[in-house]
Amino acid sequence: MLVHTIKEVREQVKAWKKEGLTVGYVPTMGYLHEGHRSLIEKAVSENDRVVVSVFVNPTQFGPNEDYEDYPRDIQKDYALCTDAGANLVFNPEPEEMYFPDKCTTVNVEGLSKGLCGAKRPVHFGGVCLVVSKFLNIVTPDRAYFGEKDAQQLAIIKRMVRDLSMDVEIVGCPIVREADGLAKSSRNTYLSAEERVAALVLNRSLTKAKAAMEDGLRCVSEIRDLIESEIKEEPLAKADYIEIVDSETLQPVESVERDVLVAIAVYIGKTRLIDNFTFRLA
Amino acid sequence: MLVHTIKEVREQVKAWKKEGLTVGYVPTMGYLHEGHRSLIEKAVSENDRVVVSVFVNPTQFGPNEDYEDYPRDIQKDYALCTDAGANLVFNPEPEEMYFPDKCTTVNVEGLSKGLCGAKRPVHFGGVCLVVSKFLNIVTPDRAYFGEKDAQQLAIIKRMVRDLSMDVEIVGCPIVREADGLAKSSRNTYLSAEERVAALVLNRSLTKAKAAMEDGLRCVSEIRDLIESEIKEEPLAKADYIEIVDSETLQPVESVERDVLVAIAVYIGKTRLIDNFTFRLA
Repeated sequence: MLVHTIKEVREQVKAWKKEGLTVGYVPTMGYLHEGHRSLIEKAVSENDRVVVSVFVNPTQFGPNEDYEDYPRDIQKDYALCTDAGANLVFNPEPEEMYFPDKCTTVNVEGLSKGLCGAKRPVHFGGVCLVVSKFLNIVTPDRAYFGEKDAQQLAIIKRMVRDLSMDVEIVGCPIVREADGLAKSSRNTYLSAEERVAALVLNRSLTKAKAAMEDGLRCVSEIRDLIESEIKEEPLAKADYIEIVDSETLQPVESVERDVLVAIAVYIGKTRLIDNFTFRLA
Repeated sequence: MLVHTIKEVREQVKAWKKEGLTVGYVPTMGYLHEGHRSLIEKAVSENDRVVVSVFVNPTQFGPNEDYEDYPRDIQKDYALCTDAGANLVFNPEPEEMYFPDKCTTVNVEGLSKGLCGAKRPVHFGGVCLVVSKFLNIVTPDRAYFGEKDAQQLAIIKRMVRDLSMDVEIVGCPIVREADGLAKSSRNTYLSAEERVAALVLNRSLTKAKAAMEDGLRCVSEIRDLIESEIKEEPLAKADYIEIVDSETLQPVESVERDVLVAIAVYIGKTRLIDNFTFRLA
């Protein structure tokens, strides 16, 4: 079922809950790929009913970002959702989600400043606002987020904890193309040449991971290793290379607890992200 | 029933909802008076079950405010709640409500700057945070707030709307002592002499209201009228006298729509507030 209003979602979810059914929820910006499908399939396997939202959220884009250009294809998205087993797809217009005089802000301070937040100052405030709203509208038992957006996942977990929201946040592994590129709706922006160059993200992370598994613990050396790999790719320009505590997202100097190794790299004009979490046994 | 943990509240409310019962909720800081009782009684009359929270919320007090001194008496409060028909009283410790590393903020910008927000910069952020949490814990059908805290009521209504929280916010009229003083837990701070002086709040507002009913529309004249009345009381010192749009809380120059006439006055060291909403027919 494809619906466009908050009212329709609420009515359907209330009817399910009245029957005692559990509800899983997958928030997306649409233009769905295998990464999203893996989230939906996990939600389907763990809940009686699954809601997917498809909404390119204006409040999480900065003024010079790609809100207008972000790819959209609701018919294809709806087909993928249905095929993956979702029961309800919620595709609201911005006007359905936001009042013109909205003035409420939700922020997870401390986790939102570094990494992607450094160059995208309004981004995570917009994410927190829209995810709060969707969680309040869908009232799921579980909500599924990709680990590719590692900072987003950490922030949402913290927000849900701090606001006592009654939902379990489930992180799901990154899904990659056969050659290792992390799936992203923004991969569609890449030319054929850039598509090849984009492999440098996963290649540099794989190199760092191997070195860490071999015992490398010095963060500046890990960073240098990633940086030099990226520099060898002429079409690539690193935005950030960060090794941080996997929960607090605070920088560390050496790897003495679980860390998130996260990078953002421009391939031509397209900014891509990738990461892995390194767990001390 | 008196409970102290989030878990107990959630379990009880879920059991009620499973039976199809509606839930009303009254948030308080305790030291309950007839004003609170009127909220609880209204909640009881409109819902199958009623939850009252009693929690002196540290995050809504500024560093030099009266958090430590704020009066507390949970046994008396519990008796009043039960007598008024409440089914569950939730009295958490601060540690139950807040993690030491909490870093999520909720703000209703635009409505929080003026009036009480001008001198209490962290106050409404703290209110929004704690009310968000309580609404997420109690998940009531309706929540009841006193009109005495008019700015708080406007902010909570806006927050609930902007975050798509599925709850009806119900405002309830100010309850007054026989001589007109608005009921407040802080009235207990007043000496006998100050108690008499405190009548100037209601007296000055009543005068303004009468003049407005007689046709006075110029805001600066209304303000002068209130100010001169307060100045005649030697123990009183006005903190603010504001005439604002009743919804947006933005200042107006003349009364051409519904306005909130709100004052804060120091009586000795005790800061009291009062207000009325003037509706154009």
